[in-house]
Amino acid sequence: MKKGFFITFEGCDGCGKTTQSVIIVKKLKELGYDVVHSREPGGTVVAEAVRNILLNPKNKIFPVTELLLYEACRSQHTNELIIPSLCSDKIVVCERYTDATVAYQGFGRGLDRKTILSLNRIATSDIVPDITILFDSDLKKGLQRVDIRGKDRLENENIAFHRRVRAGYMWLAKKYSRRIKIVKTGSRSIEDIACEIYKIIAGRLKPSGKLGAK
Amino acid sequence: MKKGFFITFEGCDGCGKTTQSVIIVKKLKELGYDVVHSREPGGTVVAEAVRNILLNPKNKIFPVTELLLYEACRSQHTNELIIPSLCSDKIVVCERYTDATVAYQGFGRGLDRKTILSLNRIATSDIVPDITILFDSDLKKGLQRVDIRGKDRLENENIAFHRRVRAGYMWLAKKYSRRIKIVKTGSRSIEDIACEIYKIIAGRLKPSGKLGAK
Repeated sequence: MKKGFFITFEGCDGCGKTTQSVIIVKKLKELGYDVVHSREPGGTVVAEAVRNILLNPKNKIFPVTELLLYEACRSQHTNELIIPSLCSDKIVVCERYTDATVAYQGFGRGLDRKTILSLNRIATSDIVPDITILFDSDLKKGLQRVDIRGKDRLENENIAFHRRVRAGYMWLAKKYSRRIKIVKTGSRSIEDIACEIYKIIAGRLKPSGKLGAK
Repeated sequence: MKKGFFITFEGCDGCGKTTQSVIIVKKLKELGYDVVHSREPGGTVVAEAVRNILLNPKNKIFPVTELLLYEACRSQHTNELIIPSLCSDKIVVCERYTDATVAYQGFGRGLDRKTILSLNRIATSDIVPDITILFDSDLKKGLQRVDIRGKDRLENENIAFHRRVRAGYMWLAKKYSRRIKIVKTGSRSIEDIACEIYKIIAGRLKPSGKLGAK
């Protein structure tokens, strides 16, 4: 069924996911690929409506509710946009996906990991990214960055929460080392990081030869 | 932990759940009980926001998304309202709860029943109603009734869908025969039905002696 290529970007808040995914989407389009750029939570009309509930700092949401809302968002997004795009030989670039739920709700909130992995499977119909770029960045600098643009409900959590999220991402990178590639940002330039990401992705795109290059 | 008493009303659309639950809530309050009247999907600010997404006829929602949104609603409603009320010795009367998801999403939409039962447990922290009043009513008459007040997204489904929902409710009534009490409506008067419901509930309230009668 799935013939396209599915790339996800993961990492803590303010790590540069949007900046870098915009660059790679532009680059892949220039190379003639048919690319869909999306994000979680959101990506479709219904999922964006759920996103508004999830990220509104005024809403007091119980951890299990938060988990179920993220999975509902994911299910709609996956079924409405990701699966049809992959079935049409497209490259899908998505900011955050299933790993974020393990990191934020599992490690951050302390919810049961087995339950989360099971819900991830239900919500995605077992679609798994072909490759995941995980940014390993400075937590405090990232949070300062999101502070400038205004924090959402999860970004408002304290530094201990974000440290647990980071530990969660590192646990995932170890568990799924073939799929998840860590990109350290540090004080590197945007161009330098973009170059590394392109190399990782290009290395995986070439051998498949099945993608919808125009 | 739980010291109150939890009553749910279930049945197909337009069967009289709201009419009868209003009557029993009034009666129980007159008897001096501390009663909370709620409904699903909804019952709290966040859950009502999710309800608006779920019932909006304009929204095209995938069956698994629908299931996860109902469970998210339920989790918020249970944790924010139902559990605290039961812990304060109150009687909670709720229109629709976990059985509705088995009937509508399980039998109506054809989603896996084991998954639904497992999600029900996650969303409710294993809270189960003490008694469930299930209306066995004329499907077509019920749908005519909701037609007058304007149909929501689920009520808009065809008669075959509603027949499957009804079969689901009957399956539940057989499986949980101690908890679920069937009340046949037919051409009986509202007062006559209310009288039967009161007898069922009063018979269960008396022996407990633990409820918060003022």
